[in-house]
Amino acid sequence: MRVLGIDPGLRNLGWGVISVDGSRLSHVANGICHSTGTDLAVRLLSLFDQLSEVIETWQPDTAAVEKTFVNKDGAGTLKLGQARGIAMLVPARAGLSIGEYAPNSVKKSVVGVGHADKNQVEHMVKMQLPGVKIAGADAADALAIAMCHSYHMQSSGRISAALEKAAQ
Amino acid sequence: MRVLGIDPGLRNLGWGVISVDGSRLSHVANGICHSTGTDLAVRLLSLFDQLSEVIETWQPDTAAVEKTFVNKDGAGTLKLGQARGIAMLVPARAGLSIGEYAPNSVKKSVVGVGHADKNQVEHMVKMQLPGVKIAGADAADALAIAMCHSYHMQSSGRISAALEKAAQ
Repeated sequence: MRVLGIDPGLRNLGWGVISVDGSRLSHVANGICHSTGTDLAVRLLSLFDQLSEVIETWQPDTAAVEKTFVNKDGAGTLKLGQARGIAMLVPARAGLSIGEYAPNSVKKSVVGVGHADKNQVEHMVKMQLPGVKIAGADAADALAIAMCHSYHMQSSGRISAALEKAAQ
Repeated sequence: MRVLGIDPGLRNLGWGVISVDGSRLSHVANGICHSTGTDLAVRLLSLFDQLSEVIETWQPDTAAVEKTFVNKDGAGTLKLGQARGIAMLVPARAGLSIGEYAPNSVKKSVVGVGHADKNQVEHMVKMQLPGVKIAGADAADALAIAMCHSYHMQSSGRISAALEKAAQ
């Protein structure tokens, strides 16, 4: 089965698709959806269109989105929230089940510790997905989210359930 | 021309459509899109579908969305941001121009003062749109946003530009 990971952001929205065969993971594709400009609606629509195309092209069976870090920067949280709304909507429209994981859970399941830095995450992603070429830091995070989702599904036996849903 | 106002919210997303003929405003329709449950993706998809149907049914020519109030409640801001992402996306997908107005600007243009309370806003909406039956407080806000947008377009002569865009 294919798992799509999404690292939401308004300017750079990372995505990564991995294939899960039992306990074996392999890389399928990864990239970053960019949006720029001053018109928020146009930017959100651009992210929506790009992410819809990713799903159309790579046909994942399930998805996972990083739980956004909420901080005291209200304006930043709002921007991220708007982008995250799109990141949740697009896979939901495609009928995919969607997991949500906090950044620390992602790091813990991929690197082994919750406080790992970006370089460690990228290193482990490369170790687990041999031959992967990563489009950027946000794409590395997205692949890590997809890996975290696949680990969680394996450990909870949810792969079969997700496959059943995908086959409907 | 028809103006759609949107008061974004995850649980209750208010909408209102008014018709603008020169300086004359009249009520077309208003309502509230509800989403409940614990699955965020399902709720966002439900708002997306409901708001898409509003635009399909009432065929507005332009839209306006309230600028969200950013406060210290990060989790609340994030929720609102996600709903607001949908509120911006749906009219953008329909090719509508989208205005954004802060709550105080809406109140100032509809009631005359920026610190008006909800009852004053609802009262002025009823005065300006005779015979209107308002579906609830969020729908009243949405109608006020639509009125604010029409005043701004009139004063800046943007109606003709928006009509041209709608006719394309």
